[in-house]
Amino acid sequence: MAWSLSPFSPQSIAPLGVSERRRGLAQEKMTENGVFSRDKVLTIDTMNPRVKNVEYAVRGPIVQRAMQIEKELREGLKKPFTEVIKANIGDAHAMGQQPITFFRQVLALCSYPELLNENMFPEDAKNRARRILHACGGGSVGAYSASQGIDCVRQDVACYIERRDGGVPCDPDNVYLTTGASDGIVTMLKLLVCGEGASRTGVMISIPQYPLYSAALAELGAVQVNYYLNEEKCWSMDLSELESSLAEARKHCNPKALCIINPGNPTGQVQSRQCIEDVIRFAAKERLFLMADEVYQDNVYAEGCQFHSFKKVLFELGPEYSDNVELASFHSTSKCYMGECGFRGGYMEVINMDAEVQAQLSKLVSVRLCPPVPGQALMDLVVNSPQPGEPSHITFMKRTATLSLLAEKAKLTEQILNTVPGITCNPVQGAMYSFPNISLPEKSIKEAKALGQAPDMFYCMNLLEETGICLVPGSGFGQKDGTYHFRMTILPPTDKLKILLAKVKEFHQKFTQQYS
Amino acid sequence: MAWSLSPFSPQSIAPLGVSERRRGLAQEKMTENGVFSRDKVLTIDTMNPRVKNVEYAVRGPIVQRAMQIEKELREGLKKPFTEVIKANIGDAHAMGQQPITFFRQVLALCSYPELLNENMFPEDAKNRARRILHACGGGSVGAYSASQGIDCVRQDVACYIERRDGGVPCDPDNVYLTTGASDGIVTMLKLLVCGEGASRTGVMISIPQYPLYSAALAELGAVQVNYYLNEEKCWSMDLSELESSLAEARKHCNPKALCIINPGNPTGQVQSRQCIEDVIRFAAKERLFLMADEVYQDNVYAEGCQFHSFKKVLFELGPEYSDNVELASFHSTSKCYMGECGFRGGYMEVINMDAEVQAQLSKLVSVRLCPPVPGQALMDLVVNSPQPGEPSHITFMKRTATLSLLAEKAKLTEQILNTVPGITCNPVQGAMYSFPNISLPEKSIKEAKALGQAPDMFYCMNLLEETGICLVPGSGFGQKDGTYHFRMTILPPTDKLKILLAKVKEFHQKFTQQYS
Repeated sequence: MAWSLSPFSPQSIAPLGVSERRRGLAQEKMTENGVFSRDKVLTIDTMNPRVKNVEYAVRGPIVQRAMQIEKELREGLKKPFTEVIKANIGDAHAMGQQPITFFRQVLALCSYPELLNENMFPEDAKNRARRILHACGGGSVGAYSASQGIDCVRQDVACYIERRDGGVPCDPDNVYLTTGASDGIVTMLKLLVCGEGASRTGVMISIPQYPLYSAALAELGAVQVNYYLNEEKCWSMDLSELESSLAEARKHCNPKALCIINPGNPTGQVQSRQCIEDVIRFAAKERLFLMADEVYQDNVYAEGCQFHSFKKVLFELGPEYSDNVELASFHSTSKCYMGECGFRGGYMEVINMDAEVQAQLSKLVSVRLCPPVPGQALMDLVVNSPQPGEPSHITFMKRTATLSLLAEKAKLTEQILNTVPGITCNPVQGAMYSFPNISLPEKSIKEAKALGQAPDMFYCMNLLEETGICLVPGSGFGQKDGTYHFRMTILPPTDKLKILLAKVKEFHQKFTQQYS
Repeated sequence: MAWSLSPFSPQSIAPLGVSERRRGLAQEKMTENGVFSRDKVLTIDTMNPRVKNVEYAVRGPIVQRAMQIEKELREGLKKPFTEVIKANIGDAHAMGQQPITFFRQVLALCSYPELLNENMFPEDAKNRARRILHACGGGSVGAYSASQGIDCVRQDVACYIERRDGGVPCDPDNVYLTTGASDGIVTMLKLLVCGEGASRTGVMISIPQYPLYSAALAELGAVQVNYYLNEEKCWSMDLSELESSLAEARKHCNPKALCIINPGNPTGQVQSRQCIEDVIRFAAKERLFLMADEVYQDNVYAEGCQFHSFKKVLFELGPEYSDNVELASFHSTSKCYMGECGFRGGYMEVINMDAEVQAQLSKLVSVRLCPPVPGQALMDLVVNSPQPGEPSHITFMKRTATLSLLAEKAKLTEQILNTVPGITCNPVQGAMYSFPNISLPEKSIKEAKALGQAPDMFYCMNLLEETGICLVPGSGFGQKDGTYHFRMTILPPTDKLKILLAKVKEFHQKFTQQYS
C-alpha cells in the first residue's frame, strides 16, 4: 500500500487513517527490472472515505466467494455439490422464470422495426411498438429520450397510478422515469442530504433494510437514523419506535426524511392500511419527507393482506395531508410478475414537491441524459398491458400464474423453515424473500468473532462452502443486536426450492450440532 | 417559497441563503379552502446546495424553451418556422441516422429468443445472440448481470482494446461496463474526490469542456481546475497552460486528476501523438490521475489526424510510465458510427489502479446492481462486429459510409461558417460538433447583461425564437472571458445541414446589423 503526499502540494493535508510511521517513505523506488515505481495517486488512504464506508451485502463478499466457487467447479474442482444456487438476490429470470412473451415481442419490434412487417407478431404488440417508436427521436430507441423520460410513457404511468389508486389524480409531470428504482431513490436522497455536524441531514430507514439505503447514505455523508421493525409482530412498524428513534436522532442531526419499504425487503411484511395512516400522520406532524419504496406492490401473497399505496392513503386522509405531505414513491420493472431486472426500468412519482426543488430535480436528472430507452419501453408495457379484447390478453393473463406460484412458494418457505429447530420464520406476506431468525450456538459466535466475521456471515459462508447455497447474512441488512438472520429469495422453481430448503435444514442441524 | 426550520430540531442551523426577514414566518397557514398549509420540508433553501450548483447546458434553459416552442407549434401557434431543429446534442438517430441492421437484429434476437427459430436472421446475428444469452442468468437479458458487466462482453472489450492499441495487453478484469460513458466518469470522480478546505480534491478539466464534468464536480463538491485550450492553435492543449493552471490550483486545493476529452467535445480537435505524450509526462511528473474521455475515438475526419489512445501512447513511453501512470479511459455506444444513445452502453478501462482502490470500485458499482443488459449487449456488438466471411460483413461495412458522410459534413460546416463575417470556425477534426467563435456587437452584449443572460445565450435564444434552430451557447461549456461561441452538431442530413447553416448565416448577419 502506498501513500501519496504530493511534493508539489505543500498545503495538502494528511488524509485520515494514514499512520505516522508511513510518512517519509520514498515516493519512488527501483523495481527488480530497474524501473522506477511511483506511489499511486489514488490509494486506499487518499480515496474518498465515504466510498470506503459503503457496504452492499446483496453483492458482498459472500457473492464474490460464490462466483469464485462457480469458477472452481468449472475448472473441475471437487465439491460436495455440483452447482451454486444464488438465492441471495431477487433475480427471477436467473432462477428460470420465463419472460412475458408480449413484453419481449414489443421490445424486439422496437429494437428492429423491420419486424413490424412480419405476420408473426400480434397486432397489439405491433401497436404498442409503433406508439413507443413514434415517441422516440427519429423513431429509434437508439435516440436519447427527454431526461425525465418519454412523454407518452410518463402519461401511461400516470394513468396506471390513477387506476391503482382508485382515481386519485396523477400528473405525468410528477413522474420521472429512472434506471431501476435504485436510481430514483439515490436521486431523491441527493436532493435531500446536506449539512455538516449537528445540521447534517438524517434519513430514517427501517432495520432490517435494503442495503441500497445505507450505501447511498454513506456515500452522501448523511446520518443513517435507524428504526427497528418489530419481528415479534411480523416485522410491522411501531409508532413508538419511530418516535423514540427520531427524538434520539434530533440530538445530533437534522432528520428530514423517512424511508419505508412496503412490501418489505428483506422482511416480506405487507403494511396494514392503519399502519400507513399512522406513518403519514407521523411524517406530517414531525415534518419528514416520505420516501415509499413500493417496488413489490404486485407481490402480495398472504390472505388478508393487501397493498395500499402511500399516495392513496395520503389522499384518503384529506387535504390537510394530501395538500402538504411531501412524498416520493418508487416502482420498477425488476420485480412483480415480470422480473425484468436487466433492463433497469423504473419510475418515481413526486407529490407535493416544492416547485423550485422540482425544477432542480429536473435539472439534476438531465445530467445523466436519459434512462435506458428499452427500460422505459418496458415500463410502458408494464403499466399499459394487453386489455380484454386485444389479441395478447389471454396469454398475458397467465402472468397471474407466476404470482400464484410465488404465493405458494412463500407459504412453502415459511412452513419448511419453521420445522427446523432453531429457525423461526415470519410469514412471507409479500415481496420475494424470507428473513428467518436463526439461533446460533455460542461456540460458532465465538469462532466467527475470532475470524472478524459477523456470526451470521460465518454461518452463511459455511453454508455456501458445504452446500453451494448462497444467502445473504442478516448483518448485511441490519438486525437487533444478538439476533441473527439470513435473507433467502423464494424465487427458485418449486422443486429446486424444496431441495434448497431441505439442504438448509440439514445444514442448520449439522451446524448447531457441530458448535454445541 | 417556504422555510423549514423544524420546531423539533433546536440544533438545526439556518441553511445558507435564508434571509433574516423570512425567519419567524408561521409554519402553518390557512388556505382559502380552510385547510392548513404547511411549509415544505424540502425547499430551495433546505435542499442540497451542491445540487443547486450543478449546471448542464446541453439540456439547459435553451432546450427547455425549444421543447416549449415545439408544443406551441403543435398547438397551431404561428412561428417564422415550422419545426425546431435540435442541433444542441450529438443524437445521431434523432437526426435521422439509421441504426446498424446487424446490431438491431441481434438485439431483437436477445429480446425475444423465439426469433432464433426464424429464417429471416443471418447466422452470425444468431450466433452473437446465442453467445450473449448463454452468458446471461437463466439465458435472459432480463436477469441482472455481474455488476462489472457480463464476463464475455468484458472479454470482447479487452480484445477490441488490444487490437486497437496494436497488441498492448488488456485485462478484462480492468474493464467495467457502464451506463453510458457518463456513468463511468462520475464513478471515477466519486472515488477521487474528497477533502475540505485547502485539501479539497481538485480536478483539471479543459475549457471549453463537456459540462458533465463541471456538473459532476459541483455535485461532488470538488474544485474545478480549469485549463484553457488554445483556440488559435485549433483547440490544442498547451503544456505551459497546464503547468500554470496546476501551480495556481495548488495554492488552494489538492489537484489529483487531469481530464482530457479526445477527440474534443465541444471543440472537435484531435490531439496529436506528441501532445498526448506531453500530457502523460506531465501527469507522471505532477502525479495526477489521468481520465481520458475517448468516446469519439472513431469520429476522426481531418486529413493527417489520427486517433491515438492514451493507453497506447502510455505503453509506448516504456515501463517508467506504463507501470506507473494511473489512467481511466471511457468509451460509449452513443457516438461513432452507431450513435445508439438510448441504450446507455459504455465501458471504462482502468490501468495501474491500486488493487485496494479497485476493490472499492468493484464494490461501489455493485450498489447499482448492473448496467442495462441491452446496452451491454450492444457494447459487445460494437467491439465484436461481423468479420470478413460472416454473412453480415458486407452490409455492416456500409457503416464506413456514415463516417465518410460525417467527414463531409464536418468540412461543409467549417467552410460555410467561415464565410460568415464575424464567425470563425476551427476545422472540425473529429467528434460531432463545430464550436465557432462569434463576434457579438457591443449593444447586444449590453442588452443580454441587462436581461441577466450570457451574451451568447441571448444570441442563441434569439436564433431559436427566429429560426427554430436550437444550439448551445459557448458559455455552457466555458470559454475565455470576452469570447463567445456556440456548439452545433454536424449530425443533420446534408441537405438539412445546409439549410441550417444558411439560416445561421442569415441570422448572424441580421443580428449583427440589428445591434450595431
